[in-house]
Amino acid sequence: MADAGDYRILHEAALRDYLAGIPDLKALLGGEPAAWSITEVGDGNLNLVFIVKGARGGVAVKQALPYVRLVGESWPLPLSRAHYEYLALSKQAQLAPGLVPALLHHSETLALTVMELLEPHIIMRKGMVAATQYPGFVDDITTFMARTLFFTSDLALSAAEKKQGIAAFAGNHALCKITEDLIFTDPYRIAEQNRWTAPYLDGLAAELRDDMDLHVVISRLKLKFMASPEALLHGDLHTGSIMVTESQTRVIDPEFAFYGPMGFDVGAVLANLLMAYFASAGHERTPGERQAFEGWVLETVEQVWSLDTGDLHTGSIMVTESQTRVIDPEFAFYGPMGFDVGAVLANLLMAYFASAGHERTPGERQAFEGWVLETVEQVWSEFARKFLDLWRAGATGDAYPVTLFAGEKGAARLEAERQAYMQRLFTDTVGFAAAKTLRRIFGLAHNIDFELIEDPKKRAISEARAVRLARAMMVEAGAFGTIADVTGAARKLRDRMPEFANG
Amino acid sequence: MADAGDYRILHEAALRDYLAGIPDLKALLGGEPAAWSITEVGDGNLNLVFIVKGARGGVAVKQALPYVRLVGESWPLPLSRAHYEYLALSKQAQLAPGLVPALLHHSETLALTVMELLEPHIIMRKGMVAATQYPGFVDDITTFMARTLFFTSDLALSAAEKKQGIAAFAGNHALCKITEDLIFTDPYRIAEQNRWTAPYLDGLAAELRDDMDLHVVISRLKLKFMASPEALLHGDLHTGSIMVTESQTRVIDPEFAFYGPMGFDVGAVLANLLMAYFASAGHERTPGERQAFEGWVLETVEQVWSLDTGDLHTGSIMVTESQTRVIDPEFAFYGPMGFDVGAVLANLLMAYFASAGHERTPGERQAFEGWVLETVEQVWSEFARKFLDLWRAGATGDAYPVTLFAGEKGAARLEAERQAYMQRLFTDTVGFAAAKTLRRIFGLAHNIDFELIEDPKKRAISEARAVRLARAMMVEAGAFGTIADVTGAARKLRDRMPEFANG
Repeated sequence: MADAGDYRILHEAALRDYLAGIPDLKALLGGEPAAWSITEVGDGNLNLVFIVKGARGGVAVKQALPYVRLVGESWPLPLSRAHYEYLALSKQAQLAPGLVPALLHHSETLALTVMELLEPHIIMRKGMVAATQYPGFVDDITTFMARTLFFTSDLALSAAEKKQGIAAFAGNHALCKITEDLIFTDPYRIAEQNRWTAPYLDGLAAELRDDMDLHVVISRLKLKFMASPEALLHGDLHTGSIMVTESQTRVIDPEFAFYGPMGFDVGAVLANLLMAYFASAGHERTPGERQAFEGWVLETVEQVWSLDTGDLHTGSIMVTESQTRVIDPEFAFYGPMGFDVGAVLANLLMAYFASAGHERTPGERQAFEGWVLETVEQVWSEFARKFLDLWRAGATGDAYPVTLFAGEKGAARLEAERQAYMQRLFTDTVGFAAAKTLRRIFGLAHNIDFELIEDPKKRAISEARAVRLARAMMVEAGAFGTIADVTGAARKLRDRMPEFANG
Repeated sequence: MADAGDYRILHEAALRDYLAGIPDLKALLGGEPAAWSITEVGDGNLNLVFIVKGARGGVAVKQALPYVRLVGESWPLPLSRAHYEYLALSKQAQLAPGLVPALLHHSETLALTVMELLEPHIIMRKGMVAATQYPGFVDDITTFMARTLFFTSDLALSAAEKKQGIAAFAGNHALCKITEDLIFTDPYRIAEQNRWTAPYLDGLAAELRDDMDLHVVISRLKLKFMASPEALLHGDLHTGSIMVTESQTRVIDPEFAFYGPMGFDVGAVLANLLMAYFASAGHERTPGERQAFEGWVLETVEQVWSLDTGDLHTGSIMVTESQTRVIDPEFAFYGPMGFDVGAVLANLLMAYFASAGHERTPGERQAFEGWVLETVEQVWSEFARKFLDLWRAGATGDAYPVTLFAGEKGAARLEAERQAYMQRLFTDTVGFAAAKTLRRIFGLAHNIDFELIEDPKKRAISEARAVRLARAMMVEAGAFGTIADVTGAARKLRDRMPEFANG
């Protein structure tokens, strides 16, 4: 943990000296430290974030401040959160390799972490405001969730390992407390920091404060958040904590571009793939070790079609292993799995309802909206599928011991119980998704999906639709047995005109 | 925690020297250390327990061994459990004063605790085999459970305090593991250490191993045990961990006894009470401070009737504040509340079913059996009442914040939710009670309620009735909505003759 005595905030000059003093980072950045560009880019609520670029490469530097950045020194927040973020990031990197930024350096004293600079990734929420679709997102985020949640649960861990994990994150209670207050309490009562799109939503805000059925449900969810350490959660898994690239393949260096015969480019790609295929044998250390790769190359040769730019060989195609990176796990703790899954779904649904508010001409974002709802469905179904596959393949934890489910009859009963387990998790997910939605409309922290709708009435209309769905998801939970019930209800609300008592 | 390097087992001579070296204990025991009597009395499964008596007083000394006493050095068990027992005992003493033995000394290094010597208390289970009724038991055990569970739950603690508590006990996982294996796993599969009353119960044991519905329920209960840190549990709250006196008042020193007029004794008591009443004013430090006491004395004068022994004044009546002491919390950890409450109910129900096996003439234990079932009902209803009263009176925890339930409507809805909360807790309790029963009949550790029934067929008959109830409580949980459903089902099974395939 950070020793408060030696902590100091590193602004530009101090940060330059600090990084220059770490040989690996100095080499990675390259060139003269004095020439490094250092830009503060933190747009989150809590920390300082710098992008540092040198002659050779770049890094991202995140330093915790001893207070909430959004509010100021009047709201102190322990530096220890940097320790928990580092701990969570290390665990996630191990469980979901390639889906979180690579860790390059960490200082407990300074509550500072240096990470891989993510380029050309952008914050997913920004892309969604611009109606960008991310075809690789479902696969990446469901892999991240299924693996980080399953492998830190009682299904994969011994009870002793699990208790050690819970204890290791127990000290991160100040960050949990933010969630407990801002998500599970304040939006439902009068609280100084609440805000909403007035005057349109005044009536809904008052209903929220007066709705005792809702207060019971949100209190049950709060208790579950506090006292159900099912797995190591990211704890803040909204689309602002996810960075994406539009596709996982980037074509670069088009300085030879001209109008010419298409076959020139396609042939260039094919030639390069074939050379890679023939070269492969020469890289073998043991016979056959590259067979899978070679098969993939030939398959790719068959599949390559219709690419068009000049100078297109495999040296000018950059690929990343996955297009998605999950960042900022400083809220990590052992909690209910549905909180993370619900966070993703809630943020997709909010993007869906916000979309109408961003329309300049009717229907222009229709394809995007269709993709969003399809993504909602696939995030749940793919998550469930991958989680179940992990459970079926390797349940080494102390829960549901395989010796109790021997034989054909046992296997069938266990499989039915797995489905029941996922159904309970789905119900939790629906409730948490609703809670995550309502806090963004009535609580302290809002999101740009709605906030960037400039016309307040349009914004209120989008928000009111999201509120209506969220309330139903909380108090009529029985009506949402499948993810299609959720997307179906969302679709029906797409064009609903709310009646505002005010405005 | 105990430092294994300095740990040594203290047998009689070493223990005598050790205690003599602690001035407070030496004074408490009194007289020459060489004259102290030291007797090893441990009849539990894990530890050494000594009773030490000196010229003036006595103490109980408990030392953890680095292995399971019942099995031997082949089953090592960490000494740290003495640390957790001490921690739990300290907490329980604070929350339920007078209901646990007073702590006199603790050594982390030696994994050794010195406690108040409980006299004339006996292990409750022994008393129940002898058909003894304990009229004060319900009040004491429900106070113990309601207070220790409520005040360590999210209803009373902040989320931060709760997380600290969970972390403080997370290291006690080796003891939890014993429960996970011996209660939630082994009785349902072939395991070397299982045993049952063969050949009569061979068929039931096979059914248990083959019953996949039961395996699902026991696995859900196991997961709840591992991953629902609702409150600080005792963790092993059976009637072998409860010491009782037959009544809370003990009349002593009857050396003046003779046959004489009853009024002599009654008058002696009344005179002593009246003297205490008049003396009271003289002990006042501030006017009126002893008013409640004085009122109680006069009320007692009015209520005193029919006592008959010689020399009966208040100097020869010893009272304890409560007749019950809960001991041995070394399995303490943060877990589901229903596990503790279910443990008490299960052990009462087993005493009920065992009772027929102890009969020498039909019906001779009828009054006792009636008292047991009444106690089962009252343990739940009084526990629920006291728990709810604590919740209503002082819910200072982060769960169910009162600000969300303001006004008359809010108060009514919160009260309904409190009832729903208790109903969920009751369902958990029923399931855990059943699990605690089955392990005592098919697992490693049995209890004397059944074991002391010498005729194996009679024993098997009693056990089979308990098994039938326990199985129903697990797989037909919906049929047990109230505690009267449990006692009603037990009563119906009292005389049921099981059919044994073997024997």
